[in-house]
Amino acid sequence: MDTVISEKALRAFMERVFEREGFAAADAVAIADVLMLADLFGIESHGAQRMMYYHQNILSGSVNTAAKIETVRETPVSVLLDAHFAMGQLAGVRAMNLAIEKAKKTGVGIASVRNSSHYGIAGYYPLMAAKEGLCAFSMTNTGPIMVPTFGREMMLGTNPVAFCMPADPYPFWFDASTTVVTLGKVEVHAKREKPMPEGWTIDARGEICTDAEKMNASILAGEMGGILPLGGAGETNSGHKGYGLAIMVEALTGVLAQGLLSPEMQGAHGDHTSHFFLAFDPGMFGEPEDIRAQMSRYLQMLRSSEKLPGESRIYTPGEKAFESMHRRMEQGIPVEEKTLGELRSIAEALGVEAI
Amino acid sequence: MDTVISEKALRAFMERVFEREGFAAADAVAIADVLMLADLFGIESHGAQRMMYYHQNILSGSVNTAAKIETVRETPVSVLLDAHFAMGQLAGVRAMNLAIEKAKKTGVGIASVRNSSHYGIAGYYPLMAAKEGLCAFSMTNTGPIMVPTFGREMMLGTNPVAFCMPADPYPFWFDASTTVVTLGKVEVHAKREKPMPEGWTIDARGEICTDAEKMNASILAGEMGGILPLGGAGETNSGHKGYGLAIMVEALTGVLAQGLLSPEMQGAHGDHTSHFFLAFDPGMFGEPEDIRAQMSRYLQMLRSSEKLPGESRIYTPGEKAFESMHRRMEQGIPVEEKTLGELRSIAEALGVEAI
Repeated sequence: MDTVISEKALRAFMERVFEREGFAAADAVAIADVLMLADLFGIESHGAQRMMYYHQNILSGSVNTAAKIETVRETPVSVLLDAHFAMGQLAGVRAMNLAIEKAKKTGVGIASVRNSSHYGIAGYYPLMAAKEGLCAFSMTNTGPIMVPTFGREMMLGTNPVAFCMPADPYPFWFDASTTVVTLGKVEVHAKREKPMPEGWTIDARGEICTDAEKMNASILAGEMGGILPLGGAGETNSGHKGYGLAIMVEALTGVLAQGLLSPEMQGAHGDHTSHFFLAFDPGMFGEPEDIRAQMSRYLQMLRSSEKLPGESRIYTPGEKAFESMHRRMEQGIPVEEKTLGELRSIAEALGVEAI
Repeated sequence: MDTVISEKALRAFMERVFEREGFAAADAVAIADVLMLADLFGIESHGAQRMMYYHQNILSGSVNTAAKIETVRETPVSVLLDAHFAMGQLAGVRAMNLAIEKAKKTGVGIASVRNSSHYGIAGYYPLMAAKEGLCAFSMTNTGPIMVPTFGREMMLGTNPVAFCMPADPYPFWFDASTTVVTLGKVEVHAKREKPMPEGWTIDARGEICTDAEKMNASILAGEMGGILPLGGAGETNSGHKGYGLAIMVEALTGVLAQGLLSPEMQGAHGDHTSHFFLAFDPGMFGEPEDIRAQMSRYLQMLRSSEKLPGESRIYTPGEKAFESMHRRMEQGIPVEEKTLGELRSIAEALGVEAI
């Protein structure tokens, strides 16, 4: 059973929790905004559902609420930050804002971050840039959950690539892990006691496994086996491409920032993540309105193209998310019973007003 | 039956063909170098095998041997070129060299190209940058061959993403289309009269099709149906991610360069392609040797990780290609009978010394 909570109430709750956790008021607002976008976009795995995870990380000290994010190196087009185990959202927003500022001045800005933590949905950050008329990327490494092509040891993270570009009626908003699915999807199947489709995970012996409960437990325990790269097992359907994309993300995050590499992190989410942000001004290449109109026109061509029999819509990336946001701003956000219980226990532990 | 031809002889042949086609000597050398890298890397679909395609494009005038590549807009970090239907390789090399030059001066360079043509393997260009110690991307749109998720009309190209970063003993070299497979793989199955694996293509009715001959013909004829995105049909195994990546590539190529969009091009390869190149200096973020060592160490960790039963190796992207290059530099390049016949007929038509 879901309980529907208004956008305003859920946001206010998150803000008071993070403030009580020890963050400055503005920082609490910033963290809540990243989580709220996930809940509004319908990406529940990265919204209120993650509050307990963050709460525990703060309690254990793996996230430092007093961390001072440090600028290690800087040029007019680049910056390297050491987040000193700050909340990933604060590091992410700081870094993306610097990349945006540089892109506005010079045309392009790259921000690299090390020693950060889970930063929420990767797509939050390039959307910040698109609101300013820029194109932008965001990537992060995570704790290991993906096996290499022909391998059975988790050596790569979820390693998402997010990209955003201004368009109408919504920006083109792409945010995808380079695994075939995220751990969240395995968890959902485990909770519902449903078998997974073939092609998501392999077990310790390297065989295709559809048992979600078994795989969820083995991944969390760091055992052999794991989630397959986008494209699946072996090379037949190009699993090596998803594997290669994931290495590319690690190259641009953990390697470039000189932070921890995915297999050096503990836990599936990873506590010492590195991020990569790149923003650039499309106005360097033409009139921004023309490029925006061309993008909007292409997305409309895709949506209007011939559908499969029985399918009523072709979606473009971000469309479902923005439609969900408009709906949920009006109608509220459905929160799962288990998540609601977690939120209430956090409120009780911190002595803040419950939801 | 393959005929083995030495690297030197094949390269010299390509150079004299392109010179006779009307290119300046230096340009003929540059075009041949892109094709030769594909043959050396074992990516036969993009080497000598493409000579006939280029020859026909030059004959038909869709590629202009006398094109003057024009700089339309330029900033210290960016350039937009109009290739005026030059050979894609010449546009690509010019653009990547400009991106490299800018990256060396300012830290980053982005080059956008419109009205180009088929530029060979996408991975040639970022490798140019990696040889100079830089990290780089290359992307291109192509004629339409991919159907959207839930669609049956070809609206997207092969749309590869290539990325390269310095490492030892080889650079990290990633070059992958965002389709599950390229048209070349469908062609190879058609030639060998072998059924394709399920999950590569859908036919006009939107049903999974394993008949390579039928699909090759229908794709070349521009009929309904086409190649699926990386991740396959529907959303079960995340075909929407491959679809989204392909749109991202179109956004950064045809849209940003304000060139033709994939579905506006004629033919599966596309004659009015747009490209995107981005190079940046990792030295902005740390000591280049440290970052290079970290990358090399990670790639070695992947290769050394636990293998599937029965598998003797885990590859990292580019390894097969560089191993093939070393072998083929010494032992020569196997050229298929059909391709050899095409090369000889080009030689005869142009009156240059045959191979």
